[in-house]
Amino acid sequence: MTAVRMTAWQRPPEVTRLPVPEPGPGEVLIEVAGAGVCHSDLHVMEWPAGAVPYDLPFTLGHETSGRVRAFGPGARSPGLDEGDAVLVYGPWGCGICPACARGAENYCRRAGEIRAAGGGLGADGGMAHHMIVPSPRLLVPIGDLDQLVAAPLTDAALTPYHAVKRSLHRLVPGTAAVVIGIGGLGHMAVQLLKALSPAEVVAVDVAEDKLDLAAEAGADHRVPAGEGAAERIRSITDGLGATLVLDCVGADATMATAAAAAAVESDVTVVGLAGGTLPVRFGAVPFEASVAIPYWGTRGELAEVVALARAGRIRPHVETHPLEQALEVYQRLRDGRVEGRAVLVPGG
Amino acid sequence: MTAVRMTAWQRPPEVTRLPVPEPGPGEVLIEVAGAGVCHSDLHVMEWPAGAVPYDLPFTLGHETSGRVRAFGPGARSPGLDEGDAVLVYGPWGCGICPACARGAENYCRRAGEIRAAGGGLGADGGMAHHMIVPSPRLLVPIGDLDQLVAAPLTDAALTPYHAVKRSLHRLVPGTAAVVIGIGGLGHMAVQLLKALSPAEVVAVDVAEDKLDLAAEAGADHRVPAGEGAAERIRSITDGLGATLVLDCVGADATMATAAAAAAVESDVTVVGLAGGTLPVRFGAVPFEASVAIPYWGTRGELAEVVALARAGRIRPHVETHPLEQALEVYQRLRDGRVEGRAVLVPGG
Amino acid sequence: MTAVRMTAWQRPPEVTRLPVPEPGPGEVLIEVAGAGVCHSDLHVMEWPAGAVPYDLPFTLGHETSGRVRAFGPGARSPGLDEGDAVLVYGPWGCGICPACARGAENYCRRAGEIRAAGGGLGADGGMAHHMIVPSPRLLVPIGDLDQLVAAPLTDAALTPYHAVKRSLHRLVPGTAAVVIGIGGLGHMAVQLLKALSPAEVVAVDVAEDKLDLAAEAGADHRVPAGEGAAERIRSITDGLGATLVLDCVGADATMATAAAAAAVESDVTVVGLAGGTLPVRFGAVPFEASVAIPYWGTRGELAEVVALARAGRIRPHVETHPLEQALEVYQRLRDGRVEGRAVLVPGG
Amino acid sequence: MTAVRMTAWQRPPEVTRLPVPEPGPGEVLIEVAGAGVCHSDLHVMEWPAGAVPYDLPFTLGHETSGRVRAFGPGARSPGLDEGDAVLVYGPWGCGICPACARGAENYCRRAGEIRAAGGGLGADGGMAHHMIVPSPRLLVPIGDLDQLVAAPLTDAALTPYHAVKRSLHRLVPGTAAVVIGIGGLGHMAVQLLKALSPAEVVAVDVAEDKLDLAAEAGADHRVPAGEGAAERIRSITDGLGATLVLDCVGADATMATAAAAAAVESDVTVVGLAGGTLPVRFGAVPFEASVAIPYWGTRGELAEVVALARAGRIRPHVETHPLEQALEVYQRLRDGRVEGRAVLVPGG
Repeated sequence: MTAVRMTAWQRPPEVTRLPVPEPGPGEVLIEVAGAGVCHSDLHVMEWPAGAVPYDLPFTLGHETSGRVRAFGPGARSPGLDEGDAVLVYGPWGCGICPACARGAENYCRRAGEIRAAGGGLGADGGMAHHMIVPSPRLLVPIGDLDQLVAAPLTDAALTPYHAVKRSLHRLVPGTAAVVIGIGGLGHMAVQLLKALSPAEVVAVDVAEDKLDLAAEAGADHRVPAGEGAAERIRSITDGLGATLVLDCVGADATMATAAAAAAVESDVTVVGLAGGTLPVRFGAVPFEASVAIPYWGTRGELAEVVALARAGRIRPHVETHPLEQALEVYQRLRDGRVEGRAVLVPGG
Repeated sequence: MTAVRMTAWQRPPEVTRLPVPEPGPGEVLIEVAGAGVCHSDLHVMEWPAGAVPYDLPFTLGHETSGRVRAFGPGARSPGLDEGDAVLVYGPWGCGICPACARGAENYCRRAGEIRAAGGGLGADGGMAHHMIVPSPRLLVPIGDLDQLVAAPLTDAALTPYHAVKRSLHRLVPGTAAVVIGIGGLGHMAVQLLKALSPAEVVAVDVAEDKLDLAAEAGADHRVPAGEGAAERIRSITDGLGATLVLDCVGADATMATAAAAAAVESDVTVVGLAGGTLPVRFGAVPFEASVAIPYWGTRGELAEVVALARAGRIRPHVETHPLEQALEVYQRLRDGRVEGRAVLVPGG
Repeated sequence: MTAVRMTAWQRPPEVTRLPVPEPGPGEVLIEVAGAGVCHSDLHVMEWPAGAVPYDLPFTLGHETSGRVRAFGPGARSPGLDEGDAVLVYGPWGCGICPACARGAENYCRRAGEIRAAGGGLGADGGMAHHMIVPSPRLLVPIGDLDQLVAAPLTDAALTPYHAVKRSLHRLVPGTAAVVIGIGGLGHMAVQLLKALSPAEVVAVDVAEDKLDLAAEAGADHRVPAGEGAAERIRSITDGLGATLVLDCVGADATMATAAAAAAVESDVTVVGLAGGTLPVRFGAVPFEASVAIPYWGTRGELAEVVALARAGRIRPHVETHPLEQALEVYQRLRDGRVEGRAVLVPGG
Repeated sequence: MTAVRMTAWQRPPEVTRLPVPEPGPGEVLIEVAGAGVCHSDLHVMEWPAGAVPYDLPFTLGHETSGRVRAFGPGARSPGLDEGDAVLVYGPWGCGICPACARGAENYCRRAGEIRAAGGGLGADGGMAHHMIVPSPRLLVPIGDLDQLVAAPLTDAALTPYHAVKRSLHRLVPGTAAVVIGIGGLGHMAVQLLKALSPAEVVAVDVAEDKLDLAAEAGADHRVPAGEGAAERIRSITDGLGATLVLDCVGADATMATAAAAAAVESDVTVVGLAGGTLPVRFGAVPFEASVAIPYWGTRGELAEVVALARAGRIRPHVETHPLEQALEVYQRLRDGRVEGRAVLVPGG
């Protein structure tokens, strides 16, 4: 089968051939339908050797949609059959520690001992015709949901879902939520906020076409990024500021906007990885504005994201490409030319 | 001025004349725009002397919309001016105890010492041209919201809002919420659930026109009350049952449906006062289905309800009548002929 | 090996001999140190055929403490080694559904499809020298905690822990919590409340020696069960009632006391299975007193219970008996002669 | 009467004479028993004109304990009588906005329009024989609690109480909480954590006598501040870090320790005002460690703090001085010679 693999650090991945793997005890073999192309892969390609404890080589792809094709010994489980369409939950923890016990494998306490963060991140991922998932617990059935559209739910939707969900108790009527950066994560964040909360949703981006995408996604207000953005948001919110600012960029400038646009008793949540810093000090951020950088989401949250998609409340904006064109698509992403999310299709 | 007053227990109220009152220290005079006609007033009229510690006579009306006309000494407050359109928060507590300190005057710990539950419930209420409110803290500004449509927000919307809000953390994507009884409270409950949560909303009523009202309000499913209702709900929810069942009737039959339709780890919340009993025992209700009978809502919640209405997310279905026709309107309500909520208009 | 097995419905279990089992793919073999003797087993013995979907025969024992002896293929996991002392989490779900995904296997959505509720409840449990656990995820390491004392943590502590934890946000300073019935669960509940909350703890029981056990466990007040108990509790709480009433008996009388002793905005939580009924209706229970019957607890909660025990904050009161005397010990429990919890010891 | 007053910016206060004030409509006259001396007053004395919107002159003292002496017109309230011992809730909001409606007058939305943050902070405070409180809602009865010991509850206990309470849901068994800086707030924080949570409590300070005070207050571990403190905390917590780090100093160094000692999914909460900055960026703080700077606490929380003190669960460590020696006591505080909290006593 074809696979897109990291074979050396600080090098582009290779499109190469591999035998179809067989599932061992407890494992499940998935036939891949689509694999989302995520900005964080570009970071993986840039990391020097040793930055993460991953062993090379491994197949990329941590946003995988596919079908169950075979169960290893002891892996068969109630509610899961050969042929079922599933998503692969991305962060693979030990499954046992207190974090994993509540489904938060993104925060597995043994992450340091496991030489992979998940399929596509140290272990073989979904940019191939087939992949092995180490346990059926990491699969979420999607019923008749469009398999290609569903792939980005595993990260582009799950990451902002997790970030939004922890703020929902604050997003009472009369509050506002801001999304900065309307890319893969941001366009899902806008949809999620509209589906989950009564807050007014404000979209911030430098690009007009991204603000258009936000408006399609349901944003109530569009604000151009940069100078004056925070003031515009304060004005929209009667001077109170936003109760959630979700920064999907994470640069110095966007984090400064986030702090300046936040309300007292708010959340400033950064999910973009552009390397910015937010200096927190008395007077520089509003009282009890909580600044945090969460990572991905939980198993249970992925099931909730799938339920939202199946109910038609959210839908990733997707462009599809053949798996063989992975390198071109990564370049397209690097150039900011992907609208919403790109999904690679084996045999596509 | 004209006023609709309780002058004797177990007797209909009287439409009579009173002088316009003057606000004392800390008090505010309101010119009434509209007063909602609530089912619970019918109970007030039926109570024997001594059932509640109210002194007679008093003016009815606990759903009041109006304008600030005068401040008593020391009552002037930032953010409130003569002429401002306001709603009157209904349950008047001591304002000081731990419950009142968080705005839950509906659960004032000194309720037993205060010989009134609020304006229209022991103290003079809003079914008059003017009313006295004991403190500016009990007023919620509504800006340019339609004053007549706004009146029912104070109870018909606030009561289900409180009931729904306490279950929101459970109403994750993939869950369902049921509203039984699509009257004044129920038609607001459907709108509130759609505005606040991603849950599927199921409306239950005996009457087709009430189910039509629910559908207009956004209900995803309509289920005729009675035999088979719980089974229909289980079928809609893939056998899991509903995560919230809000019973706006509160009769034996509806409470039995509620318990039978509830999911494991759900809320069965009864806000209707039809005198029913739900026998809770092992095996008769699902595990960790919490059965509770809340009462009204908090001050802060009323502000949130107003914010929802101002954002156009909820809108009471209202029919208006002149204040002088109060007795006829109560009869209309008793006969089940009011659709949504009736509002009395002084000079209307 | 010796095992205590259910071989027929409505019959006492048999003490018999079995070969030591071998772990299949994904499974773990445990050498049992101790197995708690739980009141609910008495119900299991009384059930008619068909009351539960369990297949006979099976070994009893759902409170198991032991050591890991062998891993089946694919079962080896980070953080778990041969020889480790562990507790066996009791309710065995599918491990995959949304409830299991957050560790709430007690509320597994596929419970109906699985012909066992866990080891000792349809599958072979811990009343034997060895037992098979279907997945390492069901094991909680206990370090150097006393293995015999630890066994009851899996149910006698976990069940009230779950019940208490869901009320902790309400148990602010100035509130009170009541525990009715100071047996296996009740004496742990008192300790848990003292360790977890600032609430005043009131113990209720018919027996003086049980109230002594409660006082040792840290109860602030002791109240004899029966007539006047609710009034005593109201008096202790300045008339407000208790914010949590945890009924570890679950009879008509104790549930009536619970409702009468509860505060506005409280939890009335029933974990005892004595077959009682609490009729919930307007006026009969305080406003927003939530009546619920939870079942057991989650995987993550068991880890928290173990942490409490390891910190010396809770300690089950235990009497130990040889495994061979299982039938006598069940009789002892039936007669109310066990103080705290009885634990069976293989080879003991 | 004697009063300690701010009469000019960037100048020490004056001990001077004033007439006893009279309560207007809605107001209450308090005879002061004791007034706590808070570090933040030192900042008030240093501020340049215009830093805050306060009008001069005003009497200092925002930690006031006293007795009700007279009610202005309309101020008499159920549950409050002449002679009652009370604490004065410190931050005085509008009493009406959504924040005030839930008792969070510390976050009053109209704070900018009110030219005072409370008594002692722009309005006349408690460093005098009498003071006027604008509303009975701002008083919390303390029963027979020692009035001098009680004064610091209003800030030195309320501020960390608020900070701790928002993290309690995370402080499950097996977690740890760190308090940095064992002064007025810090020594209360240690007591509060022990009274409210099962977390292990780690105290950090540069001074041995402050660590002694922490140990008396119940701290489980003592760690010298500075190099290696974060590593010691990681070692105490099995490498996981602390689930709450409460920084009662707020300098660059303590905030760096806080971030380095924090766990994944933790709270880093800064209540000290030493002017430090914490640069938040990916990799510099653990995932989902929420950094926030809250301010004071709510009305309801003060009632809870009082309940804890009345139950004997917390007790400020207090040294008393005559009101006339205010300037010397401020100097003593500036020099770090106050242990726990200093309280000024009128006529003392």
